[in-house]
Amino acid sequence: MDIIVVMKPGASDEDVHRVMNRIGELSLTPHLSRGAHRTIVGAMGEQTPRIREQLEQLPGVDQIMAVTDPHKLASREFHEADTIFTAKGVRIGGPYVSIIAGPCAIESRAVLFDVGAIVKNAGAAILRGGAFKPRTSPYTFQGMGIEGLEILKEAGDRLGMPTITEVMDPRDVGTVCEYTDILQIGARNMQNFNLLMEVGQVDKPVLIKRGMAATTTDLLMSAEYVLSRGNHRVILCERGIRTFSSDVRFTLDVSAVPVLQERCHLPVFVDPSHAAGKRDLVPPLALAGIAAGASGALIEVHSCPDRALCDGPQAVLPQRFDELMEQIRQVAQIIGNRVNAPVDPAMEDDADNTVPWSGVKSDVRTVDKDPRIRLRGNHA
Amino acid sequence: MDIIVVMKPGASDEDVHRVMNRIGELSLTPHLSRGAHRTIVGAMGEQTPRIREQLEQLPGVDQIMAVTDPHKLASREFHEADTIFTAKGVRIGGPYVSIIAGPCAIESRAVLFDVGAIVKNAGAAILRGGAFKPRTSPYTFQGMGIEGLEILKEAGDRLGMPTITEVMDPRDVGTVCEYTDILQIGARNMQNFNLLMEVGQVDKPVLIKRGMAATTTDLLMSAEYVLSRGNHRVILCERGIRTFSSDVRFTLDVSAVPVLQERCHLPVFVDPSHAAGKRDLVPPLALAGIAAGASGALIEVHSCPDRALCDGPQAVLPQRFDELMEQIRQVAQIIGNRVNAPVDPAMEDDADNTVPWSGVKSDVRTVDKDPRIRLRGNHA
Amino acid sequence: MDIIVVMKPGASDEDVHRVMNRIGELSLTPHLSRGAHRTIVGAMGEQTPRIREQLEQLPGVDQIMAVTDPHKLASREFHEADTIFTAKGVRIGGPYVSIIAGPCAIESRAVLFDVGAIVKNAGAAILRGGAFKPRTSPYTFQGMGIEGLEILKEAGDRLGMPTITEVMDPRDVGTVCEYTDILQIGARNMQNFNLLMEVGQVDKPVLIKRGMAATTTDLLMSAEYVLSRGNHRVILCERGIRTFSSDVRFTLDVSAVPVLQERCHLPVFVDPSHAAGKRDLVPPLALAGIAAGASGALIEVHSCPDRALCDGPQAVLPQRFDELMEQIRQVAQIIGNRVNAPVDPAMEDDADNTVPWSGVKSDVRTVDKDPRIRLRGNHA
Amino acid sequence: MDIIVVMKPGASDEDVHRVMNRIGELSLTPHLSRGAHRTIVGAMGEQTPRIREQLEQLPGVDQIMAVTDPHKLASREFHEADTIFTAKGVRIGGPYVSIIAGPCAIESRAVLFDVGAIVKNAGAAILRGGAFKPRTSPYTFQGMGIEGLEILKEAGDRLGMPTITEVMDPRDVGTVCEYTDILQIGARNMQNFNLLMEVGQVDKPVLIKRGMAATTTDLLMSAEYVLSRGNHRVILCERGIRTFSSDVRFTLDVSAVPVLQERCHLPVFVDPSHAAGKRDLVPPLALAGIAAGASGALIEVHSCPDRALCDGPQAVLPQRFDELMEQIRQVAQIIGNRVNAPVDPAMEDDADNTVPWSGVKSDVRTVDKDPRIRLRGNHA
Repeated sequence: MDIIVVMKPGASDEDVHRVMNRIGELSLTPHLSRGAHRTIVGAMGEQTPRIREQLEQLPGVDQIMAVTDPHKLASREFHEADTIFTAKGVRIGGPYVSIIAGPCAIESRAVLFDVGAIVKNAGAAILRGGAFKPRTSPYTFQGMGIEGLEILKEAGDRLGMPTITEVMDPRDVGTVCEYTDILQIGARNMQNFNLLMEVGQVDKPVLIKRGMAATTTDLLMSAEYVLSRGNHRVILCERGIRTFSSDVRFTLDVSAVPVLQERCHLPVFVDPSHAAGKRDLVPPLALAGIAAGASGALIEVHSCPDRALCDGPQAVLPQRFDELMEQIRQVAQIIGNRVNAPVDPAMEDDADNTVPWSGVKSDVRTVDKDPRIRLRGNHA
Repeated sequence: MDIIVVMKPGASDEDVHRVMNRIGELSLTPHLSRGAHRTIVGAMGEQTPRIREQLEQLPGVDQIMAVTDPHKLASREFHEADTIFTAKGVRIGGPYVSIIAGPCAIESRAVLFDVGAIVKNAGAAILRGGAFKPRTSPYTFQGMGIEGLEILKEAGDRLGMPTITEVMDPRDVGTVCEYTDILQIGARNMQNFNLLMEVGQVDKPVLIKRGMAATTTDLLMSAEYVLSRGNHRVILCERGIRTFSSDVRFTLDVSAVPVLQERCHLPVFVDPSHAAGKRDLVPPLALAGIAAGASGALIEVHSCPDRALCDGPQAVLPQRFDELMEQIRQVAQIIGNRVNAPVDPAMEDDADNTVPWSGVKSDVRTVDKDPRIRLRGNHA
Repeated sequence: MDIIVVMKPGASDEDVHRVMNRIGELSLTPHLSRGAHRTIVGAMGEQTPRIREQLEQLPGVDQIMAVTDPHKLASREFHEADTIFTAKGVRIGGPYVSIIAGPCAIESRAVLFDVGAIVKNAGAAILRGGAFKPRTSPYTFQGMGIEGLEILKEAGDRLGMPTITEVMDPRDVGTVCEYTDILQIGARNMQNFNLLMEVGQVDKPVLIKRGMAATTTDLLMSAEYVLSRGNHRVILCERGIRTFSSDVRFTLDVSAVPVLQERCHLPVFVDPSHAAGKRDLVPPLALAGIAAGASGALIEVHSCPDRALCDGPQAVLPQRFDELMEQIRQVAQIIGNRVNAPVDPAMEDDADNTVPWSGVKSDVRTVDKDPRIRLRGNHA
Repeated sequence: MDIIVVMKPGASDEDVHRVMNRIGELSLTPHLSRGAHRTIVGAMGEQTPRIREQLEQLPGVDQIMAVTDPHKLASREFHEADTIFTAKGVRIGGPYVSIIAGPCAIESRAVLFDVGAIVKNAGAAILRGGAFKPRTSPYTFQGMGIEGLEILKEAGDRLGMPTITEVMDPRDVGTVCEYTDILQIGARNMQNFNLLMEVGQVDKPVLIKRGMAATTTDLLMSAEYVLSRGNHRVILCERGIRTFSSDVRFTLDVSAVPVLQERCHLPVFVDPSHAAGKRDLVPPLALAGIAAGASGALIEVHSCPDRALCDGPQAVLPQRFDELMEQIRQVAQIIGNRVNAPVDPAMEDDADNTVPWSGVKSDVRTVDKDPRIRLRGNHA
């Protein structure tokens, strides 16, 4: 039974029949139960928001309860095991923990190469850097654009690291794909549905950040936009929600990590840097996210943050990042996960290709029979 | 003094000098004050987020306080009087109260013409209807697209009402402008900065809905994106924020109306329909918004909402809308505002053109010397 | 059917039987329905939180949905009509709108008599003033205590107004009752259950402010503590909730007014003063609350607020209060309510006594047959 | 300089002089600075909320900024090192991590003794159990009262563990002190100031849970109530805040741990059980809190939770608790902390007594010269 229509205490027989008839019109099967105080009518079959809204308005109806989740392709019911895929040789998802690090924005070749070498040496697997920056104010640095993308690609190639960068505009998706290995959808664009549909059609993994007021269901539905267009390599990223607290920029909702893992099979990352807004808070939050079971973290690092053009206050300094990586490795191990070392992409490229759940060729594979998956199960 | 740097209790003289030197490098003038417990350094001159972030990281700095608001063109300091402009003959802003009404989505010619006639007769000034619908789920009705825009234009022409519709994609701005009189930016796109820059370059008023987790400053900065591109006809719209309350879809933040009016000169509207999510709550919230001083309200109306394809449960029924319009007219009058009647656009077209504040030709005018402006002042 | 147990997709027959057996053990009647994707088991009979929690943990159970509200005596199902009662001759509830006004704290005889005369002349019905002040900081003015209560009583007697004051400690309830006509439970004590049980046993109306993070259900359950102890004269007061917005002290949740009115029969007031925190915002918020249908408002007024010992910035000045009262009277009338004039308590004392719903003698009466009640119904 | 008065852009010289004069009247020293757009007036000397409120209202004043924190005795400025004290031989604070475990409520001697033995064997240091239960509904189990306290004391004695239990009513403080080693103030009573003042006068440590809508400053001010009455053994406990997320009962604000540790010297604990509301989420959240640097955690454990009278769904099962304790020990060690083993109270009783900061005899000691304190510093 997929929808439950709860009638008001005083609903008449006529009201109940009207509901049952409408359920029939909507091609569902009605099922009546009369209780001590209330009558309920179940509706078996595929529920949609529209069906729910229409039934909600009929006379005598008190509320509609939906039993099944609105997300489908992202759900554990659809695909039980953790999804694991590779990006340029780095395994993402399940027990593999991938650290994404780099400066907030690409400011210059010198800075990106400097920071890139630092984070690779410390053990980060993926290089980040923004070329298009969503800024609250129109009067601030908006990113280097294409020139920044070129620098990022060059740095990734030289360091042998896959790269990630944000795309903000559906018109830029094609161009950004030429330069980067993973696309990032920012928190402010999490419900930019046209952009989601665009990245749903490319052959690159997509990391979607949770919006600052998005529920986990909202985030799963945004993933659903990408999945339903055929791109199955989606990473979810908790990056802090807006609450009454003003101590931090955003309150990192650590509980979203196990909640999302229970409800969906996609890799779940955390972004302690944007949540904290202050570098001293980044290490405790990064470790908290990894301890809660995240499959990765985005950590902003800068070698000279008080000269940074963007978000300098939250950038971790190189030496602290080095220590943090060591702590992350140890914490991940305690709960049965393992941190990816930076890999040589040439060697790993065709290791993981499997036929995925939807028949589309891709390198998504499952861990149903992988003993490591039990470790995560053990954790939660 | 535009920025105040508060030093930590134990900051050394060296720390203080470093701050003063950096302020000089950033082309600001430093100003030192030593207090009982703390030393503060003021920085006179233009502050930017980057300056703030860089100073925040210097050793010995505890916090940075910004004295001036980050928004400029939208501020009362820039333009003191309420901005009033016209859209196809309807005066928007200041003491004029404009009711925007219609169905959530354009579903068919028949429904839109039916509802359009109802809301016009009841006294609504502007006709609404969505052709592109941002939907949380990819599996729901996404709007009629261009065909819907054509119906909207035809209905607006026939009824003699200006129209408003949402644009979601920067690629659609040009097309949507051909069909509608006012562009709407939805809450989920409030920080889609590329879209904001696009609508900043057209010659149509733009209504920007507050994002569900956006502060009033965030909303003003989004307006700033549009204003700074040369489009001065911006309407701000409070439509409910996300809070812990699950009684309603979004908590209508009525206090945002006077807060925004105090901080900026742009018209402030409310959207009780999306906040409430249930039609019984729409009239009390609409009246609350008007009583708090809003210059307009968006109210969804449907003649047969239990068959609607989108958001039917929140659509007000025709008869209740008729009564509500009468109550809105009376409440507006009590606080010194007046509700616009639907106008004949042919008659009013060149009535209000004035030279606006930035020298760009437009029909924006000020009410500095208009005695009606005092009414609003009296209210708050 | 009062509880619905939704089984997980893969629940076994054994799981289902275990749930049905446990429902039987808990003295409820189980009712099985098998759907396309899920099996659900209804449980008819009285649900309690404990039953819900126990069922929630059984193997194969996905979630429990409660159909009936947890509040009973406060519910419209228990008592359909608006509750109306009197406090020293002032009618409270239903279409009667009572304005409570006065200084935040009782600071001296001179100030309270001065402000009391001002608010009475403007048309306030009830005099407020705090003798025990809950203050976030232990280093601030904590109220005049008993001496303050004596001044309040004297002022109420002289002006012929019922009085209201806050009680914070169960040990003080008896004493406070000797001096005041209505007891106030502050937002920070809304879930001080021992205090609620104490005021549930006295013969004075109790106004309960909604806690800053309390749901409307939480507030109704706090009312239930008082009602279940035999005190039926309870007023609910929306005073702002904590959200991410920092423009105001608390976000006035205007939608709580119609939501509470739909779910319960008790009078619902608003407190715009504590929500706003700034006097300029008080009039718009007060009018919004009245326009949304509130049966009263608490408004802090001070004749010399910049010398006030507590919350001066939010106190409305006398002249503005006078204008505001006039606006409140007009707005209330538009939606079919009427503002109480200050009354002569000697004349009205035994006018309204009726036998209440629970058999306890009191002056609670219902408006089932009162034609005015339709006005409110018409409103929402 | 302790307060900064920012004048409005158009403030007159007269406005500025009025502010300076009032600052003088309030026994502070004014200090004038004129900037490009604004004039600011600093006020040196002790600031109080009242001073701030009074200045805020003067003509021409835009806003008041407070430079110094309102909490004093709890601040790092007052007492730089981590406070460490003992409760019946268990070291609390700084690098020592104490796990508090037991059932939510004391239900019977059998259950408490059973669960107590389980948690002791797993390595918990302190035994918890509620005798007075704050329940949202008056119709649910309210605790065993005195009889429960007797069982708790007996269990603590037999197991050699210090005990903690909640006190809800100022009238019960004396009685509860006779039976328990640590007093707990629940989240709903965090701003029950009379209760705080009462526990400020006893010779037992007090654990204060953060209210669900309390800022960290609010929590520190509640600690200040206790500290200022002479009780210096205060533990702060983050237990989840109310946000828009409905996945969990409360959103555990992990960032509050390092934020509170930076601002104050008191031990900071986390309560993952009440935040999660579901047992599967408790281990990830507990580990997240410990990884973020908490000095302890409250974890509810039950041997037969589906028969529990209170909060059964969030109780961790014995075997999972055993594994969790091992994970907690390892995670604590990675960041330089150590988990307390259950101790023999007889052996440790007078080990740590030092003269505390305020001259009151107690066993509070500082770790200024303790090399372990550096470990925590290293972490954040």
